[in-house]
Amino acid sequence: MNDRNDSPAAVKALCFDVFGTVVDWRGSVIRECEALSTTKGVQVDCEGFADAWRAGYQPAMAPVRENVREYVHLDVLHREILDGLLARFGLSGLNEEERRHLNRVWHRLDGWPDAAEGMRRLRERFLLAALSNGHVALIVNMARHAGLPWDAPLGAEVARQYKPCAEVYDTTIRMLGLLPQETMMVAAHNDDLRAARGRGMRTAFVARPTEYGPRQTADLEPDEAWDVAASDFFDLAAQLGC
Amino acid sequence: MNDRNDSPAAVKALCFDVFGTVVDWRGSVIRECEALSTTKGVQVDCEGFADAWRAGYQPAMAPVRENVREYVHLDVLHREILDGLLARFGLSGLNEEERRHLNRVWHRLDGWPDAAEGMRRLRERFLLAALSNGHVALIVNMARHAGLPWDAPLGAEVARQYKPCAEVYDTTIRMLGLLPQETMMVAAHNDDLRAARGRGMRTAFVARPTEYGPRQTADLEPDEAWDVAASDFFDLAAQLGC
Repeated sequence: MNDRNDSPAAVKALCFDVFGTVVDWRGSVIRECEALSTTKGVQVDCEGFADAWRAGYQPAMAPVRENVREYVHLDVLHREILDGLLARFGLSGLNEEERRHLNRVWHRLDGWPDAAEGMRRLRERFLLAALSNGHVALIVNMARHAGLPWDAPLGAEVARQYKPCAEVYDTTIRMLGLLPQETMMVAAHNDDLRAARGRGMRTAFVARPTEYGPRQTADLEPDEAWDVAASDFFDLAAQLGC
Repeated sequence: MNDRNDSPAAVKALCFDVFGTVVDWRGSVIRECEALSTTKGVQVDCEGFADAWRAGYQPAMAPVRENVREYVHLDVLHREILDGLLARFGLSGLNEEERRHLNRVWHRLDGWPDAAEGMRRLRERFLLAALSNGHVALIVNMARHAGLPWDAPLGAEVARQYKPCAEVYDTTIRMLGLLPQETMMVAAHNDDLRAARGRGMRTAFVARPTEYGPRQTADLEPDEAWDVAASDFFDLAAQLGC
């Protein structure tokens, strides 16, 4: 049995990174920004706004990762970043309810075109868990919006820590009741896969070459020999025998 | 808005007790026990076995609730109880793999006849969360077995405590990103609803008069004025406008 657990056939659950891998955060934020710009009658550089909001993401998580700030979920971090951007992008006229609604755009991100149907195909053979830095409510609301068939929304909140810290992977694996080698991390980001492999997980790279827009330079391809490298979720399903 | 949040229309998530409310643990344990009895060629009082196993459940959780034992999930508690019953029921011939498989019958419980379809109907209007003493893996595996369309398997494990302790309800509500009055506890047990109401949740009693077999005496009907009292999940769906 131990030998068989070391083979790819022993994988029982796929654990997905979500932002960028399953959903197109940039396109979705731009879409809502443009709608808001029209409604409010203000000119907004929505591509710049989306990129600036996301640029604040890693720095915002850093104090939690470094244990100098207690875990707070992404609605809190996203709002802190947003408040620092509104004036710069001509959006300081938004009232509190509008700011709160805009901040929750991260609960309303659209899946990549292959995401929902690809996951349904993968779900016939595997348990599907979110191993995301998004919190449970965000993942659950997004699942309803984008039609994503999760078995379990796990990751940062249940571990009270952010990826790539080890406890996020370890807690998710433990809660699934599986051994690390029975799980496979699915991500468009080499760093995430590196951390997952470090915790004993199998790894699948899925290319999302326009996650950061047409001029993306990082994560265009796998930079290690991951167990699987796929062009999208349909390709992943085919390679995993679904 | 606060006024509207106090009306039943403001409920956004249904939080379900699982053992007894969604699934028929007694019938399922009896079924597997009888199959095992046939396979092993031993006579077993399977009704007595199921009842004795379940009778150990509340006492097993007590030390965790009283904070004299650190949280361990139900596979651990179920196994401790099972090991104490095998000889008494003529099952001491089971080897370790057979014991482990039998212990996981709690991951393979069948839904009540209305459960899966009733939940699908309810899910068109509400988020569906497990607010169970079962752990995440148990709820996820059972969902696959019984076709239960959860949005989120929450409850004891994410709180590291057992119902009816307040933190189990509070943690689930918090992780759903909702106010207590935006959630409704659905249970066949008056005690569970009492604890949920104590945390500010709405309450729905669903009668499961044969959960403990044909001679059940407790929880045959609501013993307080819960917000809803239903005969099954179809009736609950109808009363909630689904």
